[in-house]
Amino acid sequence: MNRRFLLTRRPHGTPVPEDFSLVEQPIPAVPAGGLVVRNHYCSLDPAQRGWMDDVPSYMPPIALGDPVRASTVGVVHASDNPQFQPGDWVMGLNGIEDYSACHPGAFTMKLDITQVPSPSLFLSAMGAVGLTGYFGLLDVAKPQPGEVLLVSGAAGAVGSAVGQIGKIVGCRTIGIAGGPEKCRRLIEDYGYDVAIDYKGKSVRELSAEIRRAAPGGVNIVFENVGGTVMDAEMLNLAKYARIVLCGLISEYNLTEKYGVRNLWPILTQQATLYGYLVLDYAPRFAEAGAVMAQWMAEGRLRIDEDIQEGLENAYAAFMRLFTGANTGKLVLKIA
Amino acid sequence: MNRRFLLTRRPHGTPVPEDFSLVEQPIPAVPAGGLVVRNHYCSLDPAQRGWMDDVPSYMPPIALGDPVRASTVGVVHASDNPQFQPGDWVMGLNGIEDYSACHPGAFTMKLDITQVPSPSLFLSAMGAVGLTGYFGLLDVAKPQPGEVLLVSGAAGAVGSAVGQIGKIVGCRTIGIAGGPEKCRRLIEDYGYDVAIDYKGKSVRELSAEIRRAAPGGVNIVFENVGGTVMDAEMLNLAKYARIVLCGLISEYNLTEKYGVRNLWPILTQQATLYGYLVLDYAPRFAEAGAVMAQWMAEGRLRIDEDIQEGLENAYAAFMRLFTGANTGKLVLKIA
Repeated sequence: MNRRFLLTRRPHGTPVPEDFSLVEQPIPAVPAGGLVVRNHYCSLDPAQRGWMDDVPSYMPPIALGDPVRASTVGVVHASDNPQFQPGDWVMGLNGIEDYSACHPGAFTMKLDITQVPSPSLFLSAMGAVGLTGYFGLLDVAKPQPGEVLLVSGAAGAVGSAVGQIGKIVGCRTIGIAGGPEKCRRLIEDYGYDVAIDYKGKSVRELSAEIRRAAPGGVNIVFENVGGTVMDAEMLNLAKYARIVLCGLISEYNLTEKYGVRNLWPILTQQATLYGYLVLDYAPRFAEAGAVMAQWMAEGRLRIDEDIQEGLENAYAAFMRLFTGANTGKLVLKIA
Repeated sequence: MNRRFLLTRRPHGTPVPEDFSLVEQPIPAVPAGGLVVRNHYCSLDPAQRGWMDDVPSYMPPIALGDPVRASTVGVVHASDNPQFQPGDWVMGLNGIEDYSACHPGAFTMKLDITQVPSPSLFLSAMGAVGLTGYFGLLDVAKPQPGEVLLVSGAAGAVGSAVGQIGKIVGCRTIGIAGGPEKCRRLIEDYGYDVAIDYKGKSVRELSAEIRRAAPGGVNIVFENVGGTVMDAEMLNLAKYARIVLCGLISEYNLTEKYGVRNLWPILTQQATLYGYLVLDYAPRFAEAGAVMAQWMAEGRLRIDEDIQEGLENAYAAFMRLFTGANTGKLVLKIA
């Protein structure tokens, strides 16, 4: 049988268990020219919260009654395609379910799992999440050695990669995260030069703390959070700063969105804010994944995983993204 | 004697008459190597409101007791510089006052007033304001023929130029302004394809009206206003849209800034928001001013002026920018 974690009601604000259903259905038939994958690892990401809303976006909303869309890594169970044999490891944009029927295409690719210590790393370092940091920093922000890089959500899956890549290319790195334990990890695990705890601080207080860490202003902001954190960051832009708008996790579960008040410094500092999705870089994933794997092998890049187990725990695992419990790449292991 | 319109107290929110003083002082002495200009026209611009606050920005705040900083056009009264003779027409960044002492430099230049019907046009079409539209649209947004251009503050000095330049380069233009009379002018005087009146409309209503005018989304937003207007615009971005953040006039007199809630579409549409000041383009002003003059001579570009008279009316004239009374380039004629 195929256990599937379905979206059965659109969340209003913070998702609740009643928005989802865990059902058992027959293992799907192999589609013509396609394959059925036995999923082992499902990626849990903030972007999934956006896909649950019935709002036009860069991808269609998850249809009610469909499994929650997720990048997965698994093994080919059955195939009607000569390029994929049962037993091959593959990744793809599938769903949170034991078995997914899919067609080879832009998001389905075979994996050489001998490249990395665990196949799950194709959902982080070698996958969309790690490469979101890679391309967003290197291709969008184009950092120069000596520049100051400020990262929000700095202990998260994207943020921790961005900070370390920033150090590799010679930036001074400031990370913002919630709570002393995450801030300790920013320094000790991810090599940030400065860690700032946003918790319990007003925009004014947080802005002053950033200012102390970067008196000359910040050249690059890698924005994963939004809200008051973003308002404080905008008060510390250096001239010609670049802001990579990668995520706004503080807002995804708000029914009334936070309004960012401090857009004015973007104008006066002649800064540029780039709305950024990694999708356009998919053709370069293999090239960049090889670089990430090399950095990991050399000990220059640490990718932490937060592996939760069991399809029956999908809801609780997903919510770790929003409660602050999660550090590192959140993955649901289902086989 | 030299009448001077001084900033004597920093405005809290909307400027009041008591924030300023009109004084008479002796005509200044000619500085070594410099000149004294008899100002004829003083530019009144939203940017001046920002300079009145004690906030670090791209220019220092106006010092208390100094005249309100303004671009002026006038005639050399006395000179200690061989390049400037009494009687020469000049423009410069001076103050709202009868006579300004200044030094030749980046912002002081001689004018050939035979180029244009009135010397005051060096404060609009041929000056920073008109060229703000020129460079912001052509160099920052880089419009392609057939693209949809949405302009807020579309009847204003910058907006009316942007809309017309947009038509010249082949865009479909949508202007947003306040009230039926301004909307009539958008169509009849400035050639906009569509005029939208924002007054009395919620973000949702305004967004729906933009959507009806541009069902496929907007490729370029030229933002002069901010606030709810910007929130409605952001809900209508086409993929890869460019937003030129040129001004936020709705916010300049607010003590509590409006928060822009709809940043999310910037991310999902992979749009880019450019904080924009025209200052960096000063070396190209003469080149661009000649193009603007040519377009005016050919009847392709209409530059309206809102000329108010008398130094004693400086406060009332300045406030026209914020009450909606002003259409076209606001200028104070003082001689």
